[in-house]
Amino acid sequence: MSGNGEFDLVARIKARATTAMGTREDVALGIGDDAALLQLPAGRQLVVATDTLNEAVHFPVETAPADIGWKALAVNLSDLAAMGATPAWCTLSLSLHAAQPAWLDAFLDGFLALAVQHGIALVGGDTTRGPLSICVTAHGHVETGSALRRGGARVDDDLWVTGTLGDAAAALSQWRAGGASEPALRARLDRPMPRVDIGRALTNIAHACIDVSDGLLADVGHLCDASGVGARLDVDVLPASPMLEAMFTVETRRVLQTSGGDDYELCFAAASSQRDAITALGAATGVPMTRIGRIVAGRDVESLVDGAHWHPPRRGFDHFNG
Amino acid sequence: MSGNGEFDLVARIKARATTAMGTREDVALGIGDDAALLQLPAGRQLVVATDTLNEAVHFPVETAPADIGWKALAVNLSDLAAMGATPAWCTLSLSLHAAQPAWLDAFLDGFLALAVQHGIALVGGDTTRGPLSICVTAHGHVETGSALRRGGARVDDDLWVTGTLGDAAAALSQWRAGGASEPALRARLDRPMPRVDIGRALTNIAHACIDVSDGLLADVGHLCDASGVGARLDVDVLPASPMLEAMFTVETRRVLQTSGGDDYELCFAAASSQRDAITALGAATGVPMTRIGRIVAGRDVESLVDGAHWHPPRRGFDHFNG
Repeated sequence: MSGNGEFDLVARIKARATTAMGTREDVALGIGDDAALLQLPAGRQLVVATDTLNEAVHFPVETAPADIGWKALAVNLSDLAAMGATPAWCTLSLSLHAAQPAWLDAFLDGFLALAVQHGIALVGGDTTRGPLSICVTAHGHVETGSALRRGGARVDDDLWVTGTLGDAAAALSQWRAGGASEPALRARLDRPMPRVDIGRALTNIAHACIDVSDGLLADVGHLCDASGVGARLDVDVLPASPMLEAMFTVETRRVLQTSGGDDYELCFAAASSQRDAITALGAATGVPMTRIGRIVAGRDVESLVDGAHWHPPRRGFDHFNG
Repeated sequence: MSGNGEFDLVARIKARATTAMGTREDVALGIGDDAALLQLPAGRQLVVATDTLNEAVHFPVETAPADIGWKALAVNLSDLAAMGATPAWCTLSLSLHAAQPAWLDAFLDGFLALAVQHGIALVGGDTTRGPLSICVTAHGHVETGSALRRGGARVDDDLWVTGTLGDAAAALSQWRAGGASEPALRARLDRPMPRVDIGRALTNIAHACIDVSDGLLADVGHLCDASGVGARLDVDVLPASPMLEAMFTVETRRVLQTSGGDDYELCFAAASSQRDAITALGAATGVPMTRIGRIVAGRDVESLVDGAHWHPPRRGFDHFNG
């Protein structure tokens, strides 16, 4: 084999992954065979999410490789979080313009840092030549029957969101405008924090959950569609970071927070009897939990500002149009 | 949402997949939530393989979309076959230059035709904008402890291969030379037949197994490395299709069969006491089973022609160099 070929990259990934994470007892066979061989705990259902990040579509071309690695795993962990799953294993399929060990090492710095945080093992994948593209499949598990779904919201449920909204979209808009992104905002774009612990805790609290990746209004729309309900949102209570408040007008902020996307927060519906439990969960995790509206009858997602209907200029972020 | 956006493509994939395959009882939640929710049968281990195909790297640009769809799933099913796994579920992450419903429908024609043959359910994925790239993750299961691995070959085992070798590489070489590929050869390149049933049967027969994707010598090398053994191959007994025999000199044929890759046959090691069982398996499945050599002590893979050492001009197919 050549010194820079596919096999050496896989060997490098395997060595780095083993050093960073050690081994999990439930991995009978990891990187290096035709497939991984895994032991699901008894009484659990398997949860599988897959998402691809492409250069210039999902991240600016000059994004640091470590940030790309972090984000490629984070967006998938966010999907597991939205199901209330415990992360277990992932695969990584990596297309690179050329075999660049230094780039790969930096990429793995970010990827493995997040993997170690969540105890998820990298168990397989492939590397190949092509335009920069990263496909991660993340596997987790939940107690049978207890997964959070989009489809369980009920009329009169409260609608909640974790953390703050709009920072990632703000960083992207600054970058698109040709300037440097404010570092605190850019960190939210490049290093989203998947709400895994909160998702797990919500399996006993929430009726329905989704992660905010396309933009709040679009994702609330998905949750409502799946549940056969509508929602009424109070735009001016949407949680914003101090930096977002300081740097943008209220009109711009509303758009970034409702339509920007890339937040990777959880949006969930829960009975009003759960308010104390949710507040306590926020206090325990140090993550703000904000009640942003209510589930209503019908099928419409209404946004209100000062009690009047409000519409953002565009809705959601669609990777084929956005 | 726009009429050609990501969400419509996902809806189209979901509708087509449901029509083609119906539903599996072990899919609690398929396409349409944040992640799939799956029920692994009791007493089974999970088997996971992932592989990406990129335009111009893994298939010629003008390849028919239906063939691309078939092959994207086939290469992953071949990995499951090499583990002796029963296919169950897959995810599809699709990057497209633009949202083209006609292209997607043709792609799904091929993908779903093979999925239906093997009863594997498409349970999730994403579509996004980018250079044409298809990442499939295939999930199957095996009885706990019974998976075929690369690492179990023993000295004095016979080495076997299913089917015939070299046709796909021959088609690729014809295409690279600028001519049309012979259709019978091209079909082997575009529509490989993963040896799933044979792989399952081999769990009770073989000591070690690998699928032939990089080229026979490279893959026998992987099997030997994992097993800590060597191998001695008789090049002139390697099984060839009548078309390959008719169209190429013996010298070219040897290279295509040992180093070409893309065969997606199984190569396996088994005790000589299993010869009758293997012959019977070949008769039952209608797939030729050919004894091509022997596992020996040491670490070297030796190729013999008329009893003398023979070396191909290059070894294996490396997607970063080949």
